[in-house]
Amino acid sequence: MRIAFIGLGIMGKPMARNLHRAGHDMIVYNRSRPAVDELAGDGMTAASSPAEAAAKADVVVTMLPNSPQVREVVAGENGVLAGAKPGLVLVDMSSIAPLAAREIAALCEEKGVTMLDAPVSGGEPKAIDASLAVMAGGDKDTFDRLRKPVLLAMAATAVYCGPVGAGNAAKLANQIIVAANIAAVAEALTLASQSGVDPAVVVDAIRGGLAGSTVLEAKAPMMLRDDFTPGFKIDLHLKDLANALETAHEVGSPLPLTAQITEMFQTVRADGGGQCDHSALIRYFRKLASRSTAEKR
Amino acid sequence: MRIAFIGLGIMGKPMARNLHRAGHDMIVYNRSRPAVDELAGDGMTAASSPAEAAAKADVVVTMLPNSPQVREVVAGENGVLAGAKPGLVLVDMSSIAPLAAREIAALCEEKGVTMLDAPVSGGEPKAIDASLAVMAGGDKDTFDRLRKPVLLAMAATAVYCGPVGAGNAAKLANQIIVAANIAAVAEALTLASQSGVDPAVVVDAIRGGLAGSTVLEAKAPMMLRDDFTPGFKIDLHLKDLANALETAHEVGSPLPLTAQITEMFQTVRADGGGQCDHSALIRYFRKLASRSTAEKR
Repeated sequence: MRIAFIGLGIMGKPMARNLHRAGHDMIVYNRSRPAVDELAGDGMTAASSPAEAAAKADVVVTMLPNSPQVREVVAGENGVLAGAKPGLVLVDMSSIAPLAAREIAALCEEKGVTMLDAPVSGGEPKAIDASLAVMAGGDKDTFDRLRKPVLLAMAATAVYCGPVGAGNAAKLANQIIVAANIAAVAEALTLASQSGVDPAVVVDAIRGGLAGSTVLEAKAPMMLRDDFTPGFKIDLHLKDLANALETAHEVGSPLPLTAQITEMFQTVRADGGGQCDHSALIRYFRKLASRSTAEKR
Repeated sequence: MRIAFIGLGIMGKPMARNLHRAGHDMIVYNRSRPAVDELAGDGMTAASSPAEAAAKADVVVTMLPNSPQVREVVAGENGVLAGAKPGLVLVDMSSIAPLAAREIAALCEEKGVTMLDAPVSGGEPKAIDASLAVMAGGDKDTFDRLRKPVLLAMAATAVYCGPVGAGNAAKLANQIIVAANIAAVAEALTLASQSGVDPAVVVDAIRGGLAGSTVLEAKAPMMLRDDFTPGFKIDLHLKDLANALETAHEVGSPLPLTAQITEMFQTVRADGGGQCDHSALIRYFRKLASRSTAEKR
């Protein structure tokens, strides 16, 4: 297929490479030029605007930071819809609010373009080795047609979640659970340390039971080593939690836990931790704990 | 060994049976008589007080609801210490506050009795098939000596966590993480439902990634089926969270997440859910969600 890939950041660049490796004709566009030149050097075709990229493609894949960027790239001046032929499929793999996905899909439909929202979980390493997990919403036949040749060229799994927006709704659920599981481990391990018990021993004692989780396996060691090299950055997780809160308020499903954890992440960000891995949330609890101890003295 | 077992409730009775099955001479005591009679019929020796039970034993195991009951059974009138010979070992397997465990251990030491605190995770089914997880604190040599013949006769794993109280500190960390992971799944799946996305599909889409957890595997299906047969009851989880908060405030490690989730559990209990499985916490979120929707109409 002829696939235009727009948004060649940390995630997008390796995803475009995997599509190229799978044999697709790739047209690439990015706001800043170096990433485009790099991939053009590898045999992909450079485009000078989203419209130009879309005009040459059967499928457009977008991988952008958030809803405003997707809206601009799709419906803005020289955007995808300015160049699209009817029948084009847009696969937006950005993590955005479900409502924004539905609005953008409606703009696409007016031009005869079918949109899937297909956010992923898994960070840069999984983007590189094509083992991301895709959660997709939109037309089921379109999903079925693109699943193997397009989505599974970048991902290990691709699950169909429902109509447009459902992919991002599933992604928000994912991000809420990950954030809360990190907060839980951070709060519990800080209590253990403050109680004079080695948190590494606690992890070992509880990992096999009901407290076991992928977060405990992947993030507790980072907390214990005090190594917060991302991974997934607090700034990005905050963006997802803001989308979750906005969505929740629209559909009438308050998120008290997410709201509290958002404020915790904001505290760590305010202390300069926005670019740290989200496991650095433990700094919030450590700061509370040491301050309390100091006050008692 | 001659082992006195005190506290023959839902957990204690099968634990005593497993010790008996492992070949120990069992002396049993319980405040209410039927459980004692039942085990006496199986060849164990009935005692009429904790003191009498302790007088005949090398090891006393206690499995009681909370700190006040352990204090009463150990140091009260006709308690364990009233009958104990020096050299006796007390293994308290109740889930209590670490500070209470240390205080009771100090009372034991005055009488030449060595105490391990050794709470378990895993509910009635794991008590029955001897696959509990023990987290233990206290004298390391005593732990090593009792690990195989006593603890592993009731449990699949027994991890040494540190000095007396460390077992319960690990257990509190466990209970905090389990509570928060349940709250996270409940909040996220309620948002999915309220967004019109099938929560079962969401579970399937996210279970393989960073949001995966034992709680997601074990408790999400109960939430989806609306089946809250315990399992582990909200009333008991609240007891553990209260111990966590008390402990945290003593050691100077505030638990903002646990405090919030405690109030959520209290809401479900106030609505009559105290005897439900802790996964019934999702009722808190459903109630919030449906109310919000109703208000919008």
